[in-house]
Amino acid sequence: MQRSSIDVIHSLETLLSKDQVSTEASVLESYGQDWTRFTQPAPLAIVFPRSTNEVADIVKCARTHKFALVPSGGRTGLSGGAVAANGEVVVSLDKLNTIEAVNKTDRTIAVGAGAITQAIQAAAREADLFYPVDFASSGSSQIGGNIATNAGGINVIRYGMTREWVAGLTVVTGTGEILELNRGLMKNNTGLDFRHLFIGSEGVLGFITEATLRLCSPPKDPTVLVLGLSDMDAIMLVLERIQGTTPLLAYEFFSELAASKVVEHAGVARPFDTKTPFYALIEFERDSEETEAAVFEAVEACMESGWVLDAVMSQSVAQARALWRLREDISETITRWTPYKNDISSTVSKVPQLLSAVDTVVHNHYPDWEVCWYGHIGDGNLHLNILKPENLDISDFKARCGDVSVDIFEAIRGLGGSISAEHGVGTLKAPFLEYTRTESEIASMRAIKAIFDPDEIMNPGKIFLAN
Amino acid sequence: MQRSSIDVIHSLETLLSKDQVSTEASVLESYGQDWTRFTQPAPLAIVFPRSTNEVADIVKCARTHKFALVPSGGRTGLSGGAVAANGEVVVSLDKLNTIEAVNKTDRTIAVGAGAITQAIQAAAREADLFYPVDFASSGSSQIGGNIATNAGGINVIRYGMTREWVAGLTVVTGTGEILELNRGLMKNNTGLDFRHLFIGSEGVLGFITEATLRLCSPPKDPTVLVLGLSDMDAIMLVLERIQGTTPLLAYEFFSELAASKVVEHAGVARPFDTKTPFYALIEFERDSEETEAAVFEAVEACMESGWVLDAVMSQSVAQARALWRLREDISETITRWTPYKNDISSTVSKVPQLLSAVDTVVHNHYPDWEVCWYGHIGDGNLHLNILKPENLDISDFKARCGDVSVDIFEAIRGLGGSISAEHGVGTLKAPFLEYTRTESEIASMRAIKAIFDPDEIMNPGKIFLAN
Repeated sequence: MQRSSIDVIHSLETLLSKDQVSTEASVLESYGQDWTRFTQPAPLAIVFPRSTNEVADIVKCARTHKFALVPSGGRTGLSGGAVAANGEVVVSLDKLNTIEAVNKTDRTIAVGAGAITQAIQAAAREADLFYPVDFASSGSSQIGGNIATNAGGINVIRYGMTREWVAGLTVVTGTGEILELNRGLMKNNTGLDFRHLFIGSEGVLGFITEATLRLCSPPKDPTVLVLGLSDMDAIMLVLERIQGTTPLLAYEFFSELAASKVVEHAGVARPFDTKTPFYALIEFERDSEETEAAVFEAVEACMESGWVLDAVMSQSVAQARALWRLREDISETITRWTPYKNDISSTVSKVPQLLSAVDTVVHNHYPDWEVCWYGHIGDGNLHLNILKPENLDISDFKARCGDVSVDIFEAIRGLGGSISAEHGVGTLKAPFLEYTRTESEIASMRAIKAIFDPDEIMNPGKIFLAN
Repeated sequence: MQRSSIDVIHSLETLLSKDQVSTEASVLESYGQDWTRFTQPAPLAIVFPRSTNEVADIVKCARTHKFALVPSGGRTGLSGGAVAANGEVVVSLDKLNTIEAVNKTDRTIAVGAGAITQAIQAAAREADLFYPVDFASSGSSQIGGNIATNAGGINVIRYGMTREWVAGLTVVTGTGEILELNRGLMKNNTGLDFRHLFIGSEGVLGFITEATLRLCSPPKDPTVLVLGLSDMDAIMLVLERIQGTTPLLAYEFFSELAASKVVEHAGVARPFDTKTPFYALIEFERDSEETEAAVFEAVEACMESGWVLDAVMSQSVAQARALWRLREDISETITRWTPYKNDISSTVSKVPQLLSAVDTVVHNHYPDWEVCWYGHIGDGNLHLNILKPENLDISDFKARCGDVSVDIFEAIRGLGGSISAEHGVGTLKAPFLEYTRTESEIASMRAIKAIFDPDEIMNPGKIFLAN
C-alpha cells in the first residue's frame, strides 16, 4: 500500500470510529461491486457513516486528500453504477437505515438512505398505506440507491418511477454541503427543483442520505390475468383496449421462449395449454363488480378480434402469485445461459418496431442465437436477453455481443428510444450515452456536475466516461 | 427611441415577417404584463415566432445584439413571471399553438407551447382520455406557461402538478440551442433529467416551445361533498379519515368569511343552513356502490366525532358544479376588496399551525383586518387573502402588507414551508426566495442558469434579483 493510501485510511479513521472503516479483503470484494459482475472490485477502503454529518465530513476529507468516493446502497444495480475498481473509498449507507413512523395525515414516511425497500413497504403497510415502487431486488435494494437510479419496476404503468414518490431529500453534495431539498412539501414552486436533479443522478453530484417518501392507499384485490397473444401487434391493441376501461397496475409481457424456460427449468405451470408467440400478464384492481365485468368484456372483445388466443384469471392471492412467477422467474431462470442483458425503451406505440429492429440486428449478426424477450411493455420497456449458445466460450460471446450492442443502440436512436430505460447508465452504458443524449446535453451535464462536485471526487466514470 | 432599439427591431424584422413584430402601444401594454398588475409594462417589442426554429433564431439575435427576452404565454401568472418593464423583447408563443392528434396507445398528446389548456383538455376528451391539470385560468393559460411555472390547481391531490404530466419537452436554451428532452418516453434513465430542470424554471434557462403530455382515463362520475367543519383541526382529521378509504380528486377548504362573501356578492347558495368556521369541499369518483357506502360511513363517523357539523352531497353534474362555485368564485368575488394575495404551503399536517401563525402575524400588526382563507388544503396549500379595509388608501394598504409579508415569510420558514406553493417566484417573490431556498441553493441555481443562459438574456429579474 502506498504512502498516500495509508494517509487516506488514517484520515478516515480519525474522522470515524475504527469499526466504521474496513480494508478487509472480503469486505472490499463485496462492497466494491454490484450485480453486474463485470469489473474486478478494487476499492481502497469501505466506510460506514452513521449520519448525514458524517457523510459530509467524509466528503470534506476526500476533497482535502483528493480521493474518489463511490456511494454504495444495496449494490443490486445492473449497470455498474456502484462499482469501485480503481482504489476509491466506498461509502456504504448501510448504517443510515432508520425508518421513522408514518405520518398518516401527510401520507409520508421519513427514511435513511440505507433503509431496505421491502422494510419501507412493510412499514407503510402497517399504517394501512402503500409504497408502490416494487421490483425483484426489493428485499436487498436500498432506498438511496433506488432514488439515485430513479428505479422503476413492475408497477410503473400505474404509479410511475421512484421519482414520483420522493417528497423530500437530504443530500450531501460533492462540496460537502448538506442540502434539504423540498422538505416533504407537496407544492413548492420556488425556482429550480434540485430534488429532481439528484434523483437519477447515480451519485455523480453527491450523496443521498435521507428521504421523505410519499405513500398512497393500497390497491384493492389485485388480480392477475394472463393472456396468450397472436403476435406482437396484438399486445399493443390489447393494452389500448383494456386500459381504455380499466386502470391497470401492471402490463407485462414475455415471449414463448421465456415461458418455455421457466416451465422447463423453474417448475412453473403453464397458464393454459395453448402455446402462443407472446403472453401478456395484466394486473388490475378487482375493486367492484363493475370493474370485473368491464375486464371480462374487454378480454372477450380481444378474443373475438383474434388478438387473444387463450386467457386465465387469478381467483385468489395464491393464484395471482403463481401467475406472476411466469414473469418474475424469467431473469433468474435464464442466468444459466449467462445472457447478454439489455434494458431498452421506446414510446409504447413503437415497441413492436423496436423489438423487430433488434431481432433483425441480432439475427443478421448471428442467425442461430436465441433472443429471450420480456419486460414492462406497458411502459415501453423491453428487457432484451441474448442467450449464450452452449458451444460458445463466455469471453468470445461477450465480445460478439459488444459488436451487436452498437447496432442495437443505432436502432434505438433511430426510433427515438432510450439505451437505458430503468437500470441507469453506470459504467456499462457510459460509452454509449450519446445514443440517447446529445453531445450538448452531455456537456451541460458535466457542467452541472462541476457545480456540485468541483473536485471530481464523486463516483468517477459513472454516467460520463472519465475525462 | 434610441439608435440601438431601432437596430434591435430592425434585426427582428429581418429575421421574421413584418406581421410577427409589433411595437404598437396597445400590444406592448397587453403583452408586457400578467395578472399581477404590479408593474407598468414597458417592453421594446413583441414578437410572434411560428416555430421552434424561429425562437432559436430570435435567441441568437438577442445574444448578438445583447437584448433581453421575456417568454410570454397566456399571461395569467400571479407572480409577475412574464412581465416586461425594462425594454425587453417579449416573445409570445401564441402562434405555436398546434394540438396534434392524441396517440391512444401511448396516451400522449403533442402540443405547441401556445396551446390553450382548455383546448388540450377538450382534445383529450374527444379521444376518451383526460388531461387532469385544471385551474381557474385554463380558458386562457397556455401549456408552455403551465410547464414553465409547474402549475398546480384543483386536482393536485389526485393527479399531482403539471410536472408529472410532461413526457417530453422541446426547449430553446439561452444559447439558442434546441434540446429535445425525453421525447415522450415513460422510462429513460440516462443521466441528469433536464426536462425536470426546465419545468418550473420560469423562463430563466430558455424557452419551452413544444411538449408531449401524458393523458389518463377520465374520472368516473365525479361527485362533490361539502362539509361544515367545527374547527381547523377537524379539517385534517376529516381528510385523513376519508382519504383512508376513498381516493380523492380534490380536497379544498374555505373559511366562513369566504363563504359569506360568495353568498352575498356572487349569488351562490349556501350548501346548508348551518354556519361553521370552515368548510371542506371534497370531490371523489362515485365509481361503485362500494365507494359511495365507504364515503357515507366516513362522513357519519366524522359527524359522530364532532368534526363535521353538517354535510351535503351532489346528486347530479349540475349540483356538483353549483357546489364548486362556493370555492371557485371566491377569488373573483373578493377582488372588489383589492386583496393582498399570497400563495403559501407547508406539509399537510402543519397547515393548522401555518394558518394560525399567519393569522397571529396579521392580527398583531392590524387587529381589525379581515383575512379570507381558502385553498387546496389536501396539498398543504393555502391561499391567503387580506382584504383592504374600505377606509384605507390602496398604496398605503400595499405598503403595510409589504411589512406584514416579511413576518409571514418568517413564520413559513419556521415551519419548513414554502413562500410559493404553486404561483412561482417571478418578480414578486424574488426578493424573498431565501425564505424557502438557502443561499447556497440560490448560488447553484444561478450557476446552472449561467450554463444555459451565459449572456443573461433570459427573463432577467425573475426568480433571482437582477445582479
